[in-house]
Amino acid sequence: MRLLEEKISNNGKVLSDNVLKVDSFLNHQIDPKLMLEIGKEFASIFAGEGITKIVTIESSGIAPAVMAGLQMNIPVIFARKRKSLTLVDELLTATVHSFTKNETNEISISNKYVNESDRVLIIDDFLANGEAALGLVKIVQQSGAQVAGIGIVIEKSFQHGAQKLKDLGFRVESLARISSLSKGKVTFINEKVEEMI
Amino acid sequence: MRLLEEKISNNGKVLSDNVLKVDSFLNHQIDPKLMLEIGKEFASIFAGEGITKIVTIESSGIAPAVMAGLQMNIPVIFARKRKSLTLVDELLTATVHSFTKNETNEISISNKYVNESDRVLIIDDFLANGEAALGLVKIVQQSGAQVAGIGIVIEKSFQHGAQKLKDLGFRVESLARISSLSKGKVTFINEKVEEMI
Repeated sequence: MRLLEEKISNNGKVLSDNVLKVDSFLNHQIDPKLMLEIGKEFASIFAGEGITKIVTIESSGIAPAVMAGLQMNIPVIFARKRKSLTLVDELLTATVHSFTKNETNEISISNKYVNESDRVLIIDDFLANGEAALGLVKIVQQSGAQVAGIGIVIEKSFQHGAQKLKDLGFRVESLARISSLSKGKVTFINEKVEEMI
Repeated sequence: MRLLEEKISNNGKVLSDNVLKVDSFLNHQIDPKLMLEIGKEFASIFAGEGITKIVTIESSGIAPAVMAGLQMNIPVIFARKRKSLTLVDELLTATVHSFTKNETNEISISNKYVNESDRVLIIDDFLANGEAALGLVKIVQQSGAQVAGIGIVIEKSFQHGAQKLKDLGFRVESLARISSLSKGKVTFINEKVEEMI
């Protein structure tokens, strides 16, 4: 998605060979118009999949997921990293380790909002080692629903998450795919061929 | 806002005299179309205030805030309850106690995204004792920006937050104002007069 790649090139900050900071438009300050375009792109990519629900994870997945839900006219459920006082239903849970943050969270959603009749699109802001996405997959599968696809805003393709998820048979679609952050520079996987089709 | 009050009446669950559960459309499962209408309503209410930024708090404030930001064509910044690895700028912080969750968090935003030239709209999902909103006010004021208003999705008017904030001179606008949750029933403050104007 060219608009997103431009935004990353112009406003992203490379903090190390592994860490890209996009706090100015995605995960601290949010650019709502960019989120709307991201939502439209996900809606377009997954249009044929019969998706009935979107599942994401707090906090940075919420804005792109809600815009996708708006475009697709379906509800969005966000998994929590901490238990809520008012979340008293039976919970579907998974354990997720974040290598970037070096912490392990139990993530959960209520079993009321996803069930075996659903085809679920999982959306998240980043895909690196795939831990968060795999946690969301586990939760969705516990509910009996099908994972219809995984939509990622920014994929760090030099890490193994995307391949791991594809090897498990999931459709993974990332709007920006980064092949390298080395030497302080963002390099994208060239998608010119795809864009010309 | 009648649409919101209907949604609360039809889908909210009263867990106690103090706790209203709106997990089916606001703070776990999210109804994106309702969020868009909420965003439109905030944009309309605060149209004359010259607002340049919206500040909210993770996680449940994000969806309504982003929809308001979309309508007002301005950026949204969400305060974090936990420190982010990539949030390495100087932080503006405040301590917030949640009576509902019985926990105290240090909330923070980067000082890069709000400054003395800004007029800030604070948005949050709930207003009860006003702790979260007051924390956001403190953060915004530390930056030198002005608080132009406080927009709340659901106000528990039988608690003291709204009055506290108004007494401090802030414009507080809540889209649904609940006067009581007693006997398992949601009672709204009657706004028919306002709606007829």
